[in-house]
Amino acid sequence: MTATVDLIADLGESFGAYTMGDDDALLDIVSSANVACGFHAGDPRVMDRIVGECVRRGVSIGAHPSFPDLVGFGRRAMDLTAEEVRTDVMYQLGALSAFAAAHGTSVTHLCPHGRLGNLVITRQDYAEAMVQAVAQVDPSMVVLTQAGAVVDAATRRGIRIGLVGVIDRNYEDDGTLTPRREPDAVIHDTDAIVERTVRMVRDGVVVSRTGKELAVTTDSVLLHGDGPDAVAVARRVRKALVDAGVTIAPLAGANALTAP
Amino acid sequence: MTATVDLIADLGESFGAYTMGDDDALLDIVSSANVACGFHAGDPRVMDRIVGECVRRGVSIGAHPSFPDLVGFGRRAMDLTAEEVRTDVMYQLGALSAFAAAHGTSVTHLCPHGRLGNLVITRQDYAEAMVQAVAQVDPSMVVLTQAGAVVDAATRRGIRIGLVGVIDRNYEDDGTLTPRREPDAVIHDTDAIVERTVRMVRDGVVVSRTGKELAVTTDSVLLHGDGPDAVAVARRVRKALVDAGVTIAPLAGANALTAP
Amino acid sequence: MTATVDLIADLGESFGAYTMGDDDALLDIVSSANVACGFHAGDPRVMDRIVGECVRRGVSIGAHPSFPDLVGFGRRAMDLTAEEVRTDVMYQLGALSAFAAAHGTSVTHLCPHGRLGNLVITRQDYAEAMVQAVAQVDPSMVVLTQAGAVVDAATRRGIRIGLVGVIDRNYEDDGTLTPRREPDAVIHDTDAIVERTVRMVRDGVVVSRTGKELAVTTDSVLLHGDGPDAVAVARRVRKALVDAGVTIAPLAGANALTAP
Amino acid sequence: MTATVDLIADLGESFGAYTMGDDDALLDIVSSANVACGFHAGDPRVMDRIVGECVRRGVSIGAHPSFPDLVGFGRRAMDLTAEEVRTDVMYQLGALSAFAAAHGTSVTHLCPHGRLGNLVITRQDYAEAMVQAVAQVDPSMVVLTQAGAVVDAATRRGIRIGLVGVIDRNYEDDGTLTPRREPDAVIHDTDAIVERTVRMVRDGVVVSRTGKELAVTTDSVLLHGDGPDAVAVARRVRKALVDAGVTIAPLAGANALTAP
Repeated sequence: MTATVDLIADLGESFGAYTMGDDDALLDIVSSANVACGFHAGDPRVMDRIVGECVRRGVSIGAHPSFPDLVGFGRRAMDLTAEEVRTDVMYQLGALSAFAAAHGTSVTHLCPHGRLGNLVITRQDYAEAMVQAVAQVDPSMVVLTQAGAVVDAATRRGIRIGLVGVIDRNYEDDGTLTPRREPDAVIHDTDAIVERTVRMVRDGVVVSRTGKELAVTTDSVLLHGDGPDAVAVARRVRKALVDAGVTIAPLAGANALTAP
Repeated sequence: MTATVDLIADLGESFGAYTMGDDDALLDIVSSANVACGFHAGDPRVMDRIVGECVRRGVSIGAHPSFPDLVGFGRRAMDLTAEEVRTDVMYQLGALSAFAAAHGTSVTHLCPHGRLGNLVITRQDYAEAMVQAVAQVDPSMVVLTQAGAVVDAATRRGIRIGLVGVIDRNYEDDGTLTPRREPDAVIHDTDAIVERTVRMVRDGVVVSRTGKELAVTTDSVLLHGDGPDAVAVARRVRKALVDAGVTIAPLAGANALTAP
Repeated sequence: MTATVDLIADLGESFGAYTMGDDDALLDIVSSANVACGFHAGDPRVMDRIVGECVRRGVSIGAHPSFPDLVGFGRRAMDLTAEEVRTDVMYQLGALSAFAAAHGTSVTHLCPHGRLGNLVITRQDYAEAMVQAVAQVDPSMVVLTQAGAVVDAATRRGIRIGLVGVIDRNYEDDGTLTPRREPDAVIHDTDAIVERTVRMVRDGVVVSRTGKELAVTTDSVLLHGDGPDAVAVARRVRKALVDAGVTIAPLAGANALTAP
Repeated sequence: MTATVDLIADLGESFGAYTMGDDDALLDIVSSANVACGFHAGDPRVMDRIVGECVRRGVSIGAHPSFPDLVGFGRRAMDLTAEEVRTDVMYQLGALSAFAAAHGTSVTHLCPHGRLGNLVITRQDYAEAMVQAVAQVDPSMVVLTQAGAVVDAATRRGIRIGLVGVIDRNYEDDGTLTPRREPDAVIHDTDAIVERTVRMVRDGVVVSRTGKELAVTTDSVLLHGDGPDAVAVARRVRKALVDAGVTIAPLAGANALTAP
């Protein structure tokens, strides 16, 4: 059996006169894009251009909704009601869908941004609200997430999920990420990141901080575009996966997904 | 032959803690709603609620896109490029479409708000941009407008249009509206408004300021929701049309539309 | 000794085309105004007008800063850093000060709005940040608050504080407000509200839910402007205080303030 | 007589997670800063930081107000009323003043941004509105502008003005700038820019496109921070002026200003 993985990155985070990230370089590396929808980043011109580029290069398009906080780039928790989460996600998802339709395609996945993305994993009400938004607008979409409340909510509603692998963080023996306060929480060595990614995707295994082999499911690998070496690391990760015989393909188009 | 007309109003213009207009009363009078999309008014909760009410009462849903100017309520001209008009309209149209999809329906028309609505009539580049947005996102939609640049742009692209009748303004002999600087530009007498509306819709005639009968096409009649007597006037207009044998029905669902 | 109290209300919360509250009526009742600064409500036109009216009627002007959340009206917690709270408060305070200067006066107090106002009472870092903003911009200003972290922070920096009395809520025996989940948390009877206010201001006493007399300091009484009877209740509170011999005067102009 | 000139640049145009320009490099070159106030760029953290840096390096602080258009970076005309221009300018000026006060200084000049900056030169109502804002908030401030309506408006109100020299554009014989549609409208050669600047500042002369010497008054020279060579050009301009014996100093602190 050949392993398949979806390489994704957060794209379209420029805004007006402001540029962020190296979208062009990343578009040649990824198979799917999380496209900002205007609440933390992105504007209608940026969205139109990035969606057009995705179509031209065969990259699947996903919504990357956020809390409504442009100045905070969606990184600050906001105590929204579940109803506010649901409707804010719907609004952003719909806005992006118009650009997808204009370019002859559709939005195939959703992956929440920043603090909203963190909170849906632990807050059951937010997870339900986000999944309900997907179920109401287009239940054929895939929701990208990490293990947690979203998986439960999506399972119950029959929404497909994809598990996002974290390739530059250490794991504890119980499968949780090593807390950021620990000195070795983040892996900075590119060789180590590349090797871990291959093992996670091809073998379904990640080695914990203490040396224990843990079973992991990795449908998608999130690549970063910020930082001086980010694009170079992303290129190396892709090449290593291809060299290892892994197929790079959008999750949303796959026949078989992780059973939620 | 029985005349048919679409009664429309601008709805969903509340925002957050702020309330505007009497949406509930108007929803029982109109056949179609122009729903604010968040750029001049409206927010995701307001949009979700108004779309739900439209579906419940059989009212057709239209997008009411605006310049991005919340504090100015979309009433101030902004010198956007045509590209900015096109993409801003697409974004707003898409956002509303998500709520329509969630409620099992779709957005069937588009009617630009405020200054954008004025400018598309005279600026050919804006008319093209707005019509292109519709053509790209959903060419089955109807564009509501007054005679002018939008009609040309829509005709060329095969987009259906509906002509909006102005029932509380006087006309010059050449069919243009009497300029607002003239003392009798606006008609305040409710009886006169009601009578004019019936003649415009049933007979296709409006009497100019000098007493000349002019032929007019009126697919839609725009009712106002602000002002102390607005809802009462709207109710009387509807009743008079029904009493005159006119069918009130959404334009978008009609079999025959004004040939553009 | 004659008791003195400052009657305050949140004013200037209209925005663009949206109207909120009955500013005109309240301006004839209060001695000080908490003026919205554009982050949760208010815009430069509203601010200019309300400041002008305050000067004309001898009402003291205070800044009413908020989290940056217009659609949420500042009622939703946002997890800002203390640095963000400090600089957001400075920005809003400065903006209002320009209108005060233009009308020949100055901003004499600050009273945080909504959730920011709740959080500064319990979050020491937010209390410090807000008080530091005042200390940096104009240390002669008075900070209005309830007992809690702000009092400590202001004391240490030599910033004057005023304690805001809550007149429509029941108290527990330990001086805390009866939680809103309790059925009798809120007092709805106008006679009871009026009588409590007089006792709090004139006698420095409030009767707890169980009937115990508690000593309270009340420098300011916050009157509400929303709700159908709000203005009528506010008028009655003012009249009862005057009839009881209490002097109504801006706190900021008083010679003696509550020792923090 | 020794010539004196104020070197200025637009600074503090970063926003949230977005960076723009090389503020640090420019702060070592300029004598005055036009600081963005949050309407087209800048946020409270950026404003606080840039004001602090200006104080540390002895750079005078000016307000750089804009139309309220973040996504358009203040470059798009908006048809505001004069009242809206006046109050929007006051709001932004006040907001910046708070940070100046916090750092122990004050805002000493105002220079409008982008399209607002263009329009005040030709629209008398906007010029009056902007000058009135300055007159109301702090009439000791200097207004930076080019020849046009602002000069008239400021003269009548007794507000000091400073004339901004344009150093990278050709002039017609009548003293107007060569229109941008002409191929030689913009001067790209750094040597030519540097030489022109010295002649404008030291000699009060600029050579027109046809070779005619024109008398010009140049109180301030605007340096750009964007573009690959911008900072290098700015450094060369400063060095050439110093080498030519010109004193670089903030205009606002000067004893004698251009008689308006």
